[in-house]
Amino acid sequence: MRSPAGSLRASDIGRTVTVSGWVQRRRDHGGIAFIDVRDASGVIQVVADPAEHEEVTDLKMEYCISVTGVIRARPEGTENPDLPTGGVEMGVEELAVLSSADTLPFMIDDRVEIDERTRLRYRYLDLRRPRMGANLRARSRATAAIRRTLDEQGFLEVETPTLVNSTPEGARDMLVPSRLRKGEFYALPQSPQLFKQLLMVAGVERYFQIARCYRDEDFRADRQLEFTQLDLEGSFWDRDDVLDTIESVLVAVTKELRGIDVTRPFPRLTWQESMERFGTDKPDLRFGAEIIELSDLFGESGFGVFRDTLAGGGTIRGINVGQQEWSRSRADSLTERAKELGAKGLVWMIVEEDESLRSPVAKFLDDKELTGIRDALDAKPGDVLLIAADRWKLAVEVLGTLRNDLLRPSAHQDLAFLWVIDFPLFEEEEDGTITFSHHPFTSPASLDDMRDNPTGAISKAYDAVLNGVELGSGSVRIHDPDVQRQVFDILGIEPATAERRFGWFLEALRYGTPPHAGFAFGIDRLVMVLQGETSIREVIPFPKTQSGVDPMTGAPTWVEETQLEELGVTLTESALARRELPDDPGE
Amino acid sequence: MRSPAGSLRASDIGRTVTVSGWVQRRRDHGGIAFIDVRDASGVIQVVADPAEHEEVTDLKMEYCISVTGVIRARPEGTENPDLPTGGVEMGVEELAVLSSADTLPFMIDDRVEIDERTRLRYRYLDLRRPRMGANLRARSRATAAIRRTLDEQGFLEVETPTLVNSTPEGARDMLVPSRLRKGEFYALPQSPQLFKQLLMVAGVERYFQIARCYRDEDFRADRQLEFTQLDLEGSFWDRDDVLDTIESVLVAVTKELRGIDVTRPFPRLTWQESMERFGTDKPDLRFGAEIIELSDLFGESGFGVFRDTLAGGGTIRGINVGQQEWSRSRADSLTERAKELGAKGLVWMIVEEDESLRSPVAKFLDDKELTGIRDALDAKPGDVLLIAADRWKLAVEVLGTLRNDLLRPSAHQDLAFLWVIDFPLFEEEEDGTITFSHHPFTSPASLDDMRDNPTGAISKAYDAVLNGVELGSGSVRIHDPDVQRQVFDILGIEPATAERRFGWFLEALRYGTPPHAGFAFGIDRLVMVLQGETSIREVIPFPKTQSGVDPMTGAPTWVEETQLEELGVTLTESALARRELPDDPGE
Repeated sequence: MRSPAGSLRASDIGRTVTVSGWVQRRRDHGGIAFIDVRDASGVIQVVADPAEHEEVTDLKMEYCISVTGVIRARPEGTENPDLPTGGVEMGVEELAVLSSADTLPFMIDDRVEIDERTRLRYRYLDLRRPRMGANLRARSRATAAIRRTLDEQGFLEVETPTLVNSTPEGARDMLVPSRLRKGEFYALPQSPQLFKQLLMVAGVERYFQIARCYRDEDFRADRQLEFTQLDLEGSFWDRDDVLDTIESVLVAVTKELRGIDVTRPFPRLTWQESMERFGTDKPDLRFGAEIIELSDLFGESGFGVFRDTLAGGGTIRGINVGQQEWSRSRADSLTERAKELGAKGLVWMIVEEDESLRSPVAKFLDDKELTGIRDALDAKPGDVLLIAADRWKLAVEVLGTLRNDLLRPSAHQDLAFLWVIDFPLFEEEEDGTITFSHHPFTSPASLDDMRDNPTGAISKAYDAVLNGVELGSGSVRIHDPDVQRQVFDILGIEPATAERRFGWFLEALRYGTPPHAGFAFGIDRLVMVLQGETSIREVIPFPKTQSGVDPMTGAPTWVEETQLEELGVTLTESALARRELPDDPGE
Repeated sequence: MRSPAGSLRASDIGRTVTVSGWVQRRRDHGGIAFIDVRDASGVIQVVADPAEHEEVTDLKMEYCISVTGVIRARPEGTENPDLPTGGVEMGVEELAVLSSADTLPFMIDDRVEIDERTRLRYRYLDLRRPRMGANLRARSRATAAIRRTLDEQGFLEVETPTLVNSTPEGARDMLVPSRLRKGEFYALPQSPQLFKQLLMVAGVERYFQIARCYRDEDFRADRQLEFTQLDLEGSFWDRDDVLDTIESVLVAVTKELRGIDVTRPFPRLTWQESMERFGTDKPDLRFGAEIIELSDLFGESGFGVFRDTLAGGGTIRGINVGQQEWSRSRADSLTERAKELGAKGLVWMIVEEDESLRSPVAKFLDDKELTGIRDALDAKPGDVLLIAADRWKLAVEVLGTLRNDLLRPSAHQDLAFLWVIDFPLFEEEEDGTITFSHHPFTSPASLDDMRDNPTGAISKAYDAVLNGVELGSGSVRIHDPDVQRQVFDILGIEPATAERRFGWFLEALRYGTPPHAGFAFGIDRLVMVLQGETSIREVIPFPKTQSGVDPMTGAPTWVEETQLEELGVTLTESALARRELPDDPGE
């Protein structure tokens, strides 16, 4: 019978126990070997005399061993109060090497910096590190807490297929050739959206699933080809039913991983308010520096840029980013950043000790304007003020981005959950075409508004945000096939195309579909924030690199031509040409 | 506030409630409409006067409605004791149609027989039927019970990737072209086998996952391209640790779905014993008719077939299949079946009232032989005896198959769990090549035996069987890279090939790999048997047909050439030719 190494205490003194685990550390003092043996539960110090136990001589880091011996008190003065087992040590009666270890590519130690590629190449060793082990356990506890919470509320967990047909949700589908129907393809699901709506049609009423989803987007900082989401839907539900349920889940997971009780209900901001105050639809509420409208100050300004902006229908907004180290080059780089974001420029001002404002544009502004800025932005000596003059969306977005750049905490010590509600139903592209903001199955807040002024219409969509990270989004769905057709129409999807792509779904809506609403949030991101990590790769057991490669297994790989032929496909000339090239060592 | 329809009782009399659900049935008596409204919780009878509530007039089957009204006692004599809500009915104050329904393709009624293709085409309606709804709920409860059981035992649920590289587990991989590395492919996992072993290397110690897996096999009676398994692995484990854990899971699920306590430990048969007694490695223990060796009776037989079989190293075995309707054509069809299975023929005997044996071969056998058969097979008047004379494996397999054909109950009223242990390590193909029985990562029972006589060697593999259905299998794994190499060697995998395909895995084994063992069982099959279904499609929410088609969504489908080009692939000529053909209406 094996004892967990980390469970041994003073109460075990005198017991003979067997511990199996890994050699974490080994020191030799006065001819005696002190071996820290680690298993999943913790670490115990084993004390052995190599003269008595020859096997000890060869023990190296990360050997997997089994030790039987008596637990005894550590000699006075050698206790380790930092270790739960630090009051005891273990003698050796028998010691067996279960498995030896080659020299490690890196130390199993959180304090050692290792480049990510090496970590992924040896992920099985990386996961032995305490921080990564804690992340694995946290993720398991998070999903258990989610299931427990939803189980108590009568939700059914239902598995939806992962070999589906293409859906129109923006990102590219990953495809799977069919062998039995050569030339045809399955798609991997971007989400179980239509299937969960069908479960509502089927009368399930309360559905959830922790679902693997796939998006073949170009890898941005923190995307994976496959990711995991909590997917949830309820019938006879309106928005607040969803928000209430999702809050209960987020609170339960936070309690499980952080041990704290988050206050409910979460704050709610309309999309409009979120943009006005924070310049983003995923505001980080852990700090202030809200965006303030300054337009009223400059109707008659002597500063041409401000005056012209207002005359052209634009707006002037400012934020106070507080005390900042300041220099000419800092000012230049912020202006550069604003321009990258599409702004024509950026006005900065420093509040001097005497409360006067130092700024390249100060000379164009009169005292009333300068006082107005100071008052509106609650400026104190040493504060840095940033002002953008542009069309509304660009102005608030630029300031919102700079707000995050300058003030957002890098760690996730505090937690600020919120809801953003009342998203626009549609977005207008530069070329005037209309596209959906959320997805085409989202219910409009008002049918009349949608018909009269599509691009001004509000939807019944909502997002959950934590510390400036979008956890997920949901909406009340369209349950009336006529409304669904009208939406397709506004989106410029021809009736014949809608029929071909969604005919089966539109038909399903015709058999007594209940009103329904739902949500999906990314488990990876939630666990990331709660574990205080800044990349989802830290909480995914076996992630891929930015280019979609697994440095451990080498996936993806070239396959035999004959295997492809069986599937009705063959490589294009450009793919074949790539095959001839030496493998890119950077990947 | 909505009340669950099925929850309403006499204690609710006088309360005004709102119920939302579907019109399940509607009868009109004396100008009054009696409407059964169904939701996920059950059914309530709503009584409405169409003269007062005009909307009632139009209500048709499966309209989705919302009703507010007072609960009252049913008039004496009209109570329905078969219905939990049968003592009460609901009056109408307000009635709203939430969603109308077209004429249904079939009735929402378990008693109606519908062909499976139509059911799958309208799965969202099929799932409204009580039996299918019960199956959905049962599956959800089964996975919840699995997780609860393993959670209590300290297992971590860990997600492994589903975009992996090809594995060598026999069945064909499903492939996913990579867009970022054109020409290369991911595979969908046949199981998380190597990843779960890596988690053991990583020190997880107790892992489980309810994992989606993929096998592109030709669809046999009851296969799907994707299926779900409980995948489990433990470190420092031997076989009995696995069997103990899996038994605890199977007992918990059975308790949850059937309400009965299965006796533990489950019976264990060695593979050899299972084959000898039942002619299969997945015996159905719900009935007897075990296979009996009769060879000793016929060493000197006057019946040439028996004598020659024994002389050629074969065996003679019989079973008593009890009372059977018997006719010449029945005898012929059984003989035909035996021949299909590879036997040269089949001997049948009927026990007459006077205990004499009627059989085409009786005349070749002497009294001692006939008495010997009767005694060995415990024959009583009216029994049918079947005898096979062939090489051992064929003889027992033929009788095992006929045993099932003739005696296996079609329903799953009783439950007979068992373990089959000590499987052969390897199998010898007809051409003399050696292949693995379980998978190439299975530990041999003895290294010496493996080296000395590979095809006779026993492995540490085991199967769980329920009512003749193989639920799943597992093994103690190889944790020593040298042993793993020896196995590859016996399997005829060249060192260079092993290195190319598994080098990364062999390397992982070199860093202190703990001894480990595990198991995987199919959730679909377990729930199928426990729900008394005979096809896994009845317990999969959205299954595909035998040809891998979803008749509802039409998946798989043809996709745009440009979309394929982005992925570095193009259709073969034969696939293109298929595209020109009219779609096969049979699919």
